[in-house]
Amino acid sequence: MISFRNDYSEGAHPSVLEALSRSNFETTCGYSMDPFCRHAADTVRELTDCPDADVHFIVGGTLANTIVISAALRPWEGVIAATTGHINVHETGAIESSGHKVCAIEATDGKLTPALVREVMRIHCDGKDEHMVLPRMVYISDATELGTIYTKAELAALYEVCREYDLYLFLDGARLPAALVAQGNDLDITDFGKYCDAFYIGGTKNGLLFGEAVVITNDALKPHFRNMIKQRGGMFAKGFLFGVQFDAYFKDGLWLDMARHAVTQAQRIAKAAQEKGYTLYAQSPTNQVFVVLSHEKIAELEKNFAFEAFGHVDDDHEAMRFVCSWATKPEAVDALIESL
Amino acid sequence: MISFRNDYSEGAHPSVLEALSRSNFETTCGYSMDPFCRHAADTVRELTDCPDADVHFIVGGTLANTIVISAALRPWEGVIAATTGHINVHETGAIESSGHKVCAIEATDGKLTPALVREVMRIHCDGKDEHMVLPRMVYISDATELGTIYTKAELAALYEVCREYDLYLFLDGARLPAALVAQGNDLDITDFGKYCDAFYIGGTKNGLLFGEAVVITNDALKPHFRNMIKQRGGMFAKGFLFGVQFDAYFKDGLWLDMARHAVTQAQRIAKAAQEKGYTLYAQSPTNQVFVVLSHEKIAELEKNFAFEAFGHVDDDHEAMRFVCSWATKPEAVDALIESL
Amino acid sequence: MISFRNDYSEGAHPSVLEALSRSNFETTCGYSMDPFCRHAADTVRELTDCPDADVHFIVGGTLANTIVISAALRPWEGVIAATTGHINVHETGAIESSGHKVCAIEATDGKLTPALVREVMRIHCDGKDEHMVLPRMVYISDATELGTIYTKAELAALYEVCREYDLYLFLDGARLPAALVAQGNDLDITDFGKYCDAFYIGGTKNGLLFGEAVVITNDALKPHFRNMIKQRGGMFAKGFLFGVQFDAYFKDGLWLDMARHAVTQAQRIAKAAQEKGYTLYAQSPTNQVFVVLSHEKIAELEKNFAFEAFGHVDDDHEAMRFVCSWATKPEAVDALIESL
Amino acid sequence: MISFRNDYSEGAHPSVLEALSRSNFETTCGYSMDPFCRHAADTVRELTDCPDADVHFIVGGTLANTIVISAALRPWEGVIAATTGHINVHETGAIESSGHKVCAIEATDGKLTPALVREVMRIHCDGKDEHMVLPRMVYISDATELGTIYTKAELAALYEVCREYDLYLFLDGARLPAALVAQGNDLDITDFGKYCDAFYIGGTKNGLLFGEAVVITNDALKPHFRNMIKQRGGMFAKGFLFGVQFDAYFKDGLWLDMARHAVTQAQRIAKAAQEKGYTLYAQSPTNQVFVVLSHEKIAELEKNFAFEAFGHVDDDHEAMRFVCSWATKPEAVDALIESL
Repeated sequence: MISFRNDYSEGAHPSVLEALSRSNFETTCGYSMDPFCRHAADTVRELTDCPDADVHFIVGGTLANTIVISAALRPWEGVIAATTGHINVHETGAIESSGHKVCAIEATDGKLTPALVREVMRIHCDGKDEHMVLPRMVYISDATELGTIYTKAELAALYEVCREYDLYLFLDGARLPAALVAQGNDLDITDFGKYCDAFYIGGTKNGLLFGEAVVITNDALKPHFRNMIKQRGGMFAKGFLFGVQFDAYFKDGLWLDMARHAVTQAQRIAKAAQEKGYTLYAQSPTNQVFVVLSHEKIAELEKNFAFEAFGHVDDDHEAMRFVCSWATKPEAVDALIESL
Repeated sequence: MISFRNDYSEGAHPSVLEALSRSNFETTCGYSMDPFCRHAADTVRELTDCPDADVHFIVGGTLANTIVISAALRPWEGVIAATTGHINVHETGAIESSGHKVCAIEATDGKLTPALVREVMRIHCDGKDEHMVLPRMVYISDATELGTIYTKAELAALYEVCREYDLYLFLDGARLPAALVAQGNDLDITDFGKYCDAFYIGGTKNGLLFGEAVVITNDALKPHFRNMIKQRGGMFAKGFLFGVQFDAYFKDGLWLDMARHAVTQAQRIAKAAQEKGYTLYAQSPTNQVFVVLSHEKIAELEKNFAFEAFGHVDDDHEAMRFVCSWATKPEAVDALIESL
Repeated sequence: MISFRNDYSEGAHPSVLEALSRSNFETTCGYSMDPFCRHAADTVRELTDCPDADVHFIVGGTLANTIVISAALRPWEGVIAATTGHINVHETGAIESSGHKVCAIEATDGKLTPALVREVMRIHCDGKDEHMVLPRMVYISDATELGTIYTKAELAALYEVCREYDLYLFLDGARLPAALVAQGNDLDITDFGKYCDAFYIGGTKNGLLFGEAVVITNDALKPHFRNMIKQRGGMFAKGFLFGVQFDAYFKDGLWLDMARHAVTQAQRIAKAAQEKGYTLYAQSPTNQVFVVLSHEKIAELEKNFAFEAFGHVDDDHEAMRFVCSWATKPEAVDALIESL
Repeated sequence: MISFRNDYSEGAHPSVLEALSRSNFETTCGYSMDPFCRHAADTVRELTDCPDADVHFIVGGTLANTIVISAALRPWEGVIAATTGHINVHETGAIESSGHKVCAIEATDGKLTPALVREVMRIHCDGKDEHMVLPRMVYISDATELGTIYTKAELAALYEVCREYDLYLFLDGARLPAALVAQGNDLDITDFGKYCDAFYIGGTKNGLLFGEAVVITNDALKPHFRNMIKQRGGMFAKGFLFGVQFDAYFKDGLWLDMARHAVTQAQRIAKAAQEKGYTLYAQSPTNQVFVVLSHEKIAELEKNFAFEAFGHVDDDHEAMRFVCSWATKPEAVDALIESL
């Protein structure tokens, strides 16, 4: 059985594991107060060109999203997201469990636009009706849950509309590395600090054992963030493991190399699928490919491959998701392409 | 600088790291649905003699506590704890943030007793006053936050009083391994399933990179627990890392060996401190030692050793905490003893 | 200025005020434990033919909705509602603030159908995906926020689909009296107990100073409901005021007389509007009328009448809401009709 | 049966009822946006000498407390209260249900002091430990739950310590009128705005049908407070009922007259009890009297009088609470005194 289920089915890149082994007996201290984290945070600040940003390492995406959003919002405030947004679908109501409404709106390709943000604001009477939730943040992801990516112009336009309505812009970067190396991407890692109030660079889905590096550029979101991390259970005891891993991650561009591998392999699938006449459910240039398949074809493929259903198409067809990772073997992709 | 700050300042036992390396490229699936976790869960069930228990792996103690407690309680219910209980002091209000009151009561040595539970119930009108929170769970830890341990008779008595008042008994076992190997302990690992509705076996503070194994024996607490894990951000993407680590942990009694080492070293400090005439702040037979020191002595020790303040004693004295771990070197203890 | 703003702009029906005066100096006790409430609750049980129901009086709709929903749901569960549902729009995120997602779906005329419920369940993988909220309740209102009403067949069908998916059915009856006397209604007050797990009979919007009578028929929702009322701030100190008012309300059918008056007057507006060629935004047979008006006409009417905007139609038109109540004077309606 | 159970067992003062009747058919608008509320709010601002304060009317104490506290605090912040504080005991965990810890400390006579506030801050490492809740508000009540009152010097001292630690000072004034007319009181109604960031003047327990007038003087607590009121279910549909009642309340000092009556009657009981050799459980100069009685005496009194248990004294004795109100008849007190 060859798996295209997700990008977190293997451990970590050997260089990361090696770094963990190397530092294993160095006594530091807990809770990311250690020199490894300090160094990794400095690296993130430098890399993103955000010298004044606060950098926090969090163990996974749902925690990162919940902590950032619930730390930023007051009780009566909500967060705008695409209906396909991870926080709206796949976090078992984590944001609502922290007390906040996700103001979801249908979005083509999983991408929010200024027009959609305006529409949500209009529905909420531009925040002037006290009987309604006050939207205060925009949540986007890059790459999105559909594998699509934002252009620089699109991100800049969202930034503008957020300033107009006094909305924080928060970018979920669980698959940011894949977006950065995708064809069509014109965003540089230094752009996110310019256009977002907070964002994160994912590690879990790109070759670390775990870890997301949250970058907070807006001063209003900085105070007491660690209290919030602790309260939500995100204060990792052996926090130095973040530092050690992220240091290895950023060294010599390993993180982008891993992402490039994942994207390259996934795009081979996408290209082959199209050549074979399949419809793609979403135009993803990143490491996830969504192919519309008949139930018959799905059953046939399932004999040798593991992959997941993503969306209903019609009575006979389903959109299936194929994910490649830093660890995907080219021969595995060869085999899948052959079977398609 | 020699550190006695805590038991999570180093990575993992070499056997654990090795297991991680060995399995690094095995493709499994996410979210602890993999064979490693299945095997580790079976091991836990066998080890604890709880064949019908649900076993869940969670990344740390605060998450484990919050998830178990908030999954168990209805909105109007609260949890009884010693004022020194971790959930009452050191989790930044995590339990309250999930909507529940911690009904705290002063307890000698950090240990709850049936009398104290009865007293909390009396204060809450035995749960009959609808203007008050209804206590529905008792939270204890073994070893406690003061390093003390419960005897079998004490745990059994708590179990009895919990049945009488329809209270769940939940045991935080972040340092359970240290308790099990402590002098004076008469509890067997198979006792916890008998007397608790839920408990966990800590790994983070005893030689794993991270991980607590939550054991749920009460059927009422089982349904939809994974929904709760996900909602609270505790659904670890690369869940197989739990399985791999815990398999190594339980193999050939490694977990108890590590705990034994930590306790042995800590008790050397305790013995020496007493012999040198220092007062111990708590009678801990486990891997934490609490020594009453003058400010002068503290300043002197801080030149070469790292350790933390635990409690105020008087104008001139403070109780300081010294923690040993699986990784503490005997020579480090020698040096500390000499300097005491 | 003649107001058609809402149905809660005047005090109470004189009979209700009189009852309050009459009983003003009778010493009872607090928190609805008094004989007045006992009697009123008995009346509700008899009237609704729900001899075993628990009846609770709550001061307003948002509190009633929040208390019922948050008392019923476990943390990982959500409530299905039409996007136009009061809980989804006009309660400033009260349900989310209690930790639960409102799983909203577009619904014609503000009415949920079995097909829509099934669609929400399908989107949520029939409750089998632990990464998603588990829908556990269906929230409807009768009359709806658009003034429309459910037929007996429609309510029965919703009941069936709820049984199939293990969903509670909860009916917001803030304007139930208006629905009961509306043309086309074939629901009897005894039907709600048959088809709903909980529902309420509104008083605030139909001639009481305040008060909603919540009827809980499902045993699973009964325990500790008063704890929840207290916790959410809904435990009214002078609870006997509910009993006194509802006794007057149900006496000699006053409640239906008041509703009939409101509906009659509103339908006069609806009829006139249609005769004059206006489009109705919703086909409401109850005490709210939604008329599509040009901005010019709105400006003209606003000189003499107070009413509210309800929904955007196009660049030139807006749907405006006109509400009649037990206190609306027929001459006021005459004047409005003339000006239309 | 003569009742001394509480001060909310009768309706409203006749002048209040009369005002409600008089204005009953005046059409206004909902949600306290009406001229009655505007006028009453102006009166409150003038009376309290807080020209810039925001004034909000809320239906009861638990709602007022929860709304003020949860609107003020960020998720990681807590509120300091005496263990006897209403929010700590008798609101079924309402504050915790909004996500915040009540940092409770034992206080003589139910009164917090600067020393106690300092002690809570010390326990919480002066707010510098991110693993702990950050105390951010002090909650007191005047009169307290034990009927005791604060002097001007005491309140001023609390204000000072709050400034020092950056704590909001919030005063629950459910029984503020009784405090103001009590012997020993030297606080003027204009003092509360000077020393508190928010406080309220109770109406429910002093002759209104319902209603508390919340006064917010600290600008930081003002924005979006009405969103919070709505979200917590406190947005009263017929808000004008607050305005009408409070206008009558403040007219010609009716509110103080009512309080004076209640206090006078209660103090007659206190004096008689002491003369007859009973111990008072608390030195309350207000409208609640706490008398230590034997079980035998309690049983005897219960034949003719209704009153409530307040606290355990010893195996043979209980502290019983006797409450007088604006409606208590002097003859009722005569009868009680005779039976004591």
